[in-house]
Amino acid sequence: MLGEHEVTAAGVTEEVVRRIVAEELERAGRREEAARHASIIASKGTLDWAYPPLILATTAAASGMDASIFFTFYGLNIIHRDYEQKLKVSPVGNPAMPMPVPMPSIVTVLPGMGPMATHMMKSMFEGKHVASIRELIESAQDLGVKLIACQMTMDVFGYTRDDFIDGVEFGGAAAFLADARKAHVTLFV
Amino acid sequence: MLGEHEVTAAGVTEEVVRRIVAEELERAGRREEAARHASIIASKGTLDWAYPPLILATTAAASGMDASIFFTFYGLNIIHRDYEQKLKVSPVGNPAMPMPVPMPSIVTVLPGMGPMATHMMKSMFEGKHVASIRELIESAQDLGVKLIACQMTMDVFGYTRDDFIDGVEFGGAAAFLADARKAHVTLFV
Amino acid sequence: MLGEHEVTAAGVTEEVVRRIVAEELERAGRREEAARHASIIASKGTLDWAYPPLILATTAAASGMDASIFFTFYGLNIIHRDYEQKLKVSPVGNPAMPMPVPMPSIVTVLPGMGPMATHMMKSMFEGKHVASIRELIESAQDLGVKLIACQMTMDVFGYTRDDFIDGVEFGGAAAFLADARKAHVTLFV
Repeated sequence: MLGEHEVTAAGVTEEVVRRIVAEELERAGRREEAARHASIIASKGTLDWAYPPLILATTAAASGMDASIFFTFYGLNIIHRDYEQKLKVSPVGNPAMPMPVPMPSIVTVLPGMGPMATHMMKSMFEGKHVASIRELIESAQDLGVKLIACQMTMDVFGYTRDDFIDGVEFGGAAAFLADARKAHVTLFV
Repeated sequence: MLGEHEVTAAGVTEEVVRRIVAEELERAGRREEAARHASIIASKGTLDWAYPPLILATTAAASGMDASIFFTFYGLNIIHRDYEQKLKVSPVGNPAMPMPVPMPSIVTVLPGMGPMATHMMKSMFEGKHVASIRELIESAQDLGVKLIACQMTMDVFGYTRDDFIDGVEFGGAAAFLADARKAHVTLFV
Repeated sequence: MLGEHEVTAAGVTEEVVRRIVAEELERAGRREEAARHASIIASKGTLDWAYPPLILATTAAASGMDASIFFTFYGLNIIHRDYEQKLKVSPVGNPAMPMPVPMPSIVTVLPGMGPMATHMMKSMFEGKHVASIRELIESAQDLGVKLIACQMTMDVFGYTRDDFIDGVEFGGAAAFLADARKAHVTLFV
């Protein structure tokens, strides 16, 4: 701020102008819009990959950011009315999946291994008091996270708007980009 | 803009300086460079994961953004001269893959299931009039999307420059980062 | 800079103010903070997907950027003390994986195919003089890349702080977002 002595009746000096500009730039930086936006794509449709977009978006929203999730491809499963039946996890092809005992690939494809892995993962998260997918979706909606279903992949996979939970919006890649181009945090999960 | 009464022959007041700065900042924000750039990494080499980087980059370019795709690891398949043979999709290990009938993992590894899933996915996209990979690549090039092949993974996988479609550039992680650090939209597909 | 003739004893003109603002904005853009930050999530726990976050973060840091990697879900494998045993690669479910001979899915699940693919990938990278995971982790630490283990998924998977290599920090999604909201480069690997 300027003291009386720095402003004459007629105007300000160059030095004062530079100081004002620096102050305004810093103020603008503090309220920088892009730092307040997170745009996340959820493209995977398994139980394990449903957590990261929901956890990241709700955490962002809880800390005051504007967050949106764009559900596309297999990620449409996450906001499908039957998501609790649709979200499964498979140990097949993921040697990083923790299993009760080490097992070779040939065993992971046996009947029962998929359901076992799905059950095991749910138990692991519940046992550690991590919010369930249901709780995360409810939190996201309570916190104002924008949930957008990808219209194009809905058409490809034969879904209609009625297949999805209430409160979902519908849009295409252009809708995602309109948000994302204003955001520092942009993630493809 | 300033009225006659605000400018003296000698200079402007602090109040006027602050107004000018606010105007210039808003103008700078409207033409904010980072909001006009999208840098996308394509790292997967299957048919399903070839769509998102191409759709996102062409949509960005069509809306006036500068877009680039950095093809690395298995993603090099997408710009390989033989991409139409190389891009396949596998239901194995992806319980979210829509299949004609529900099937356990043990069935997805049977001979014929991979080709069937690849054929089915192509039909689903064509049936909904979604552009083919060929059309998306051509659109990307028409719209000026920069296509960069990762030199390091090319070497690792034994590819030479002649293995790729015309118009591809070559560079490393540093080339990607030089673009991406100026972009709001940065995605790893 | 202003010439003598542009500054009166009393102040500067509007034209001069606009020129000063433009200069300061350009200077601010050159030192734009967001262009100097890269925040990367490493969520996969296989050998192939351990390379991209480490290569991108070390390249960013080597070019003067502040880089951090947030290890979550299966990505915790990468900074586990036993990462050399834990990081494997599986051809199952990834038809883009280069194999010595084309092979159908039914063969990729046979015992021995996982170890063979892991061995083959290590040889391919070594043969091309690409840094090993050990060398990349050491480079990352030397270059000051911040390595953060996700506290929540550590709890879920039953890890304690002692399970990880020295120098790792611990935090949650909020810690990642606090970094990422200030960064142009944000990637989910």
